[in-house]
Amino acid sequence: MFKKVLVANRGEIAVQIIRALHDMGITAVAVYSSADKDSLFVHLADEAICIGGPQPSESYLNMAQIISAANLTGCEAIHPGYGFLSENAEFAELCETCHIKFIGPSHQLISLMGDKANAREAMKKAGVPVIPGSDGVVNTVAQAEKVAEKIGFPVLLKSAAGGGGKGIREVDRPEDLRSAFEQTQQEARISYDDEDIYVEKLIRQAKHVEMQVVADNFGHVVYLPERDCSLQRNHQKVIEESPCVLISPAERQHLGEIVSNATLKLGYTNTGTYEFLMDDDHHFYFMEMNTRLQVEHTITEEVTGIELVKAHLAVAAGEKLAFTQADATVKGHALECRLNAEDPSNNFAPQPGQINHLFFPAGSLGVRIDSGVTTGSFISPFYDSMIAKVIVHLNDRDTVISKMNRILGELEIEGIRTNQDFLDYLINTDKFHQGTYSTSYIQNEVLSDKEGFHATESV
Amino acid sequence: MFKKVLVANRGEIAVQIIRALHDMGITAVAVYSSADKDSLFVHLADEAICIGGPQPSESYLNMAQIISAANLTGCEAIHPGYGFLSENAEFAELCETCHIKFIGPSHQLISLMGDKANAREAMKKAGVPVIPGSDGVVNTVAQAEKVAEKIGFPVLLKSAAGGGGKGIREVDRPEDLRSAFEQTQQEARISYDDEDIYVEKLIRQAKHVEMQVVADNFGHVVYLPERDCSLQRNHQKVIEESPCVLISPAERQHLGEIVSNATLKLGYTNTGTYEFLMDDDHHFYFMEMNTRLQVEHTITEEVTGIELVKAHLAVAAGEKLAFTQADATVKGHALECRLNAEDPSNNFAPQPGQINHLFFPAGSLGVRIDSGVTTGSFISPFYDSMIAKVIVHLNDRDTVISKMNRILGELEIEGIRTNQDFLDYLINTDKFHQGTYSTSYIQNEVLSDKEGFHATESV
Repeated sequence: MFKKVLVANRGEIAVQIIRALHDMGITAVAVYSSADKDSLFVHLADEAICIGGPQPSESYLNMAQIISAANLTGCEAIHPGYGFLSENAEFAELCETCHIKFIGPSHQLISLMGDKANAREAMKKAGVPVIPGSDGVVNTVAQAEKVAEKIGFPVLLKSAAGGGGKGIREVDRPEDLRSAFEQTQQEARISYDDEDIYVEKLIRQAKHVEMQVVADNFGHVVYLPERDCSLQRNHQKVIEESPCVLISPAERQHLGEIVSNATLKLGYTNTGTYEFLMDDDHHFYFMEMNTRLQVEHTITEEVTGIELVKAHLAVAAGEKLAFTQADATVKGHALECRLNAEDPSNNFAPQPGQINHLFFPAGSLGVRIDSGVTTGSFISPFYDSMIAKVIVHLNDRDTVISKMNRILGELEIEGIRTNQDFLDYLINTDKFHQGTYSTSYIQNEVLSDKEGFHATESV
Repeated sequence: MFKKVLVANRGEIAVQIIRALHDMGITAVAVYSSADKDSLFVHLADEAICIGGPQPSESYLNMAQIISAANLTGCEAIHPGYGFLSENAEFAELCETCHIKFIGPSHQLISLMGDKANAREAMKKAGVPVIPGSDGVVNTVAQAEKVAEKIGFPVLLKSAAGGGGKGIREVDRPEDLRSAFEQTQQEARISYDDEDIYVEKLIRQAKHVEMQVVADNFGHVVYLPERDCSLQRNHQKVIEESPCVLISPAERQHLGEIVSNATLKLGYTNTGTYEFLMDDDHHFYFMEMNTRLQVEHTITEEVTGIELVKAHLAVAAGEKLAFTQADATVKGHALECRLNAEDPSNNFAPQPGQINHLFFPAGSLGVRIDSGVTTGSFISPFYDSMIAKVIVHLNDRDTVISKMNRILGELEIEGIRTNQDFLDYLINTDKFHQGTYSTSYIQNEVLSDKEGFHATESV
C-alpha cells in the first residue's frame, strides 16, 4: 500500500480523500491555492503546500506545480478527485513519466473515453448499447430515411460540425424528414462550411441512469447498484438516488453484466461510471464514461456499505478487490441533495461570500453530510458552488424522503444564499415521490410552470 | 399517531427524540431548566417551556411542572428519555392519572423491575437465568455449605442489610467458608444489627452483555442483537459495541428467545433491555432490566438499520411493530465511544465549562456523532458530563476500529478537558482488539497498571 499520497483537489472531495487515506494509515499531502489557505482540507492534511493563485490554471490545473509538490514531499501517488485534472489524459501520462502513480485508469483509457465518438465506437464493440444512429455521415435524404426507418422516429439530425444546440433538428414523422434534412444541410453549409450530417435516435423523457464499476489488475470487476441522476438543471446534477425506483433487480443485473463485460474487454481498471439514458421502455443508451470518482459515489457507498474511496486507492496500489459482486447488493435506499451557494431567485447565480453561521443536522440514523466548509469559511468565486452533500440512507425510500425533509428544514446556513428551498421543493413534488421524473423535469416543469418552484426574493 | 409530544429530558437524547418526532410529523415540545435555555434541544423544539431552576429537582425531576407543561401545550404523550424520570413508576402512574401517555412500559412493570429482588424472582419465573444463589436467607454454616456446593465456588456471602461493597465476602474454597460465614455474620450483627446472610455465585471476569427488546400491544416482540457494554469505569459505560465478538449466532438466538419469551410472559410492552453478566463459559446471568431507551440504543440502530426511537414512539401510540424478527439481524459491526467532559488526570472529575471550539468529524461512511452541544455551549455542573456519542458502523470490526481511531484523532474540542485520549487509548489496547475485555478491565488493568493509561496533566 502507498505510504504517502498527494491530493490534487480541494473542498469536500479533498476532505473525503484525506479521511480515507488516514483511515488506511497513509500520510496525506494537500496542495492548495492561495484562496484556500484556511480550508478544512488544508487543516486536515498532514502536509500542505500552496501551489499558486486562486485561478484554477494557476493552481489546481497547474500540472508542473502539482508534480513538483509530489516530488518535494515524496508522494508515491496522486489522487485527482473529480473535476480539475481528474480526466486529463496528459496529466495521467505525465504522472506515469514521473514515476508517480495516477490514481485512476490508464491515460490511454482516459483519452479514449474523453473522445465521444471513439468512446461510442469502443463501447459498441464491447457490447454496450449506444444511441442508435447512422454510424457516420449520411449524404442524401434517401440515406437519412433508411437510417431513420431502421432506428425509428423521433430522430435528431445533427450537423457534424455543430455544437451547443446549434445545427440540430428534431424530426418526429417520416414526412418531415426531407425538408428538415435540406434545412439542416443548408444551415450547416452556411454556418460551418460543412454539409456533413448524422442521424441519431431522439430519446425523450429519458432518465439519466448510471452504473459504477470497480476493477482491479487481476481481472476482477464488480458493478455497483445504479444511480438515478435525472434531476438536473443545466446538465448539473441536483439530486441523486440509488437505486432507481423504476429498475427491477433483473434489469440491474442485466445492465451490470453488460458494463462488467465491457470493463473487462476494454482492459479498464480502477473505478469508472457508465452513464446511460433510459427511455420509457427501459432501453439503455450509453452516453459517456466518467473515468474518475464522482460526486455522487457517496450514495453508492451508503446503499452497498462499500467504502469506494478506499477501494479506489487499494486498486491503484495494486491490491486485489476486497469485495465481490455478492457484496455489492442494494441495502435500503440512499438519497443525496447537493447544497449549493447559489441564488434561486436570480437564475441560480453563484453566491460567493462568507458563511457566518452553519448548522449541519447530522447525528441520526442514516444521515451523512459531506462538506469541505465550516462556520467562517469563504465560498470562493473561483470554484464550484457546492457547500455540502446531504445524504440520507435508510431501509425504505419513503422514510428516506421524510428524513431528508426534516434535515433540509433543520439545516442552517447564514451569510450566503443557497438552494436549500429549491431542494426542499423538489423532494416534495409528486413526480419525485413517484420517482418518475426525467432529465427535463426541472427545466420543463419545475422552473417553467406557474405552479412550479418560485424562489423567495433576496432580502 | 400522536400529534404533539412533550420531551421530558435534555441534551443529546432530547435532540434525538425531537428529531424522531419531526421525522414522524409530530410537534415536539421541550421543557428545560434555566441552565439549558440556550441549548440545542430547546432551539430544535417547536415549543419550549422553562420549568424551573438548574437543580434537577427543580426542573427535570419536577413531576408537577412537567405535567402542567404537557397540559398547557396540549401534549398527548410524554417521552422521558433516559435518566431523570424515565424509570420512575410514580411519574408513569401520574401521567396515566392525568390521561397523558407515558412513553414506556406500564408503571406496574417499571415498579417491578425497579426492585432488584422482585425483578430477580419475576425473571426466574419467566425462564430467564439469574445468578444462582440461596433464594433467600441462610441461617447456618451448614445451609451455606449446601448452597455453595450446589452453585459451585467461588461464592459471595452477602449481608442482607449491607450495601456499597460492605458486608460482602468472597469465598474461593470450601475450607474457607466457615470462617468467612462467621466473620460476615458477626460484622452484619455489629454494623446492621441484622444477621441475615445470602449466598450468591461470584462471577469473575464477566462480560456485561445486554439485549434490547421491542414489544407492541398485539403480542409481537422482537429481540435485537446483543451489545457488549463491558468497558465500564465506576459502573458507568465508556465504550459499547454490537455484536459482542465472543457470542455466536446460535447463542444470540438462544438468548433472544429467552428474553422474548420472558417479555411475553411478563406482559411487557414498549422497549426494554435485559442486562446480563456472561461468564467465561458463556453462561448468562440476569442483572437487571432497564425499562427505557438507553444511551447505547444507537449502536443497535446502526447494526440493524431499525430506528428505535421511532419504534418506541409507534408502539406507545398503539401501533403494531413495523418490523419482524427477520429484520433485526446483525448487519456489520457498530462501536460507540462516550465523549465526556471529564479530566482523566484528575480521577475523571467532571469538567463544567464553555466549549470554545468544537469540530465533529462526521461526513464519512458509517460515522454518526450524536450530541446536544455546539460551539459556545456551556457544560453545566448540574447534569451528566456526556458531550457526544461517537459512533462508527461498517461491515467489519477491524475497519470500524481503524475509523474510530481516525475520528478520535480528528475530533477537536477546546475550552474543557475531555476523555478523548482515554477513549483513544482504550480502543488501541490488545484486549480491546481481541474483544476479550471484562467489566473489571478498565479498573484492574488499564488504570491500575504502570503500563496502562496515564493521562497527560492539565495545562
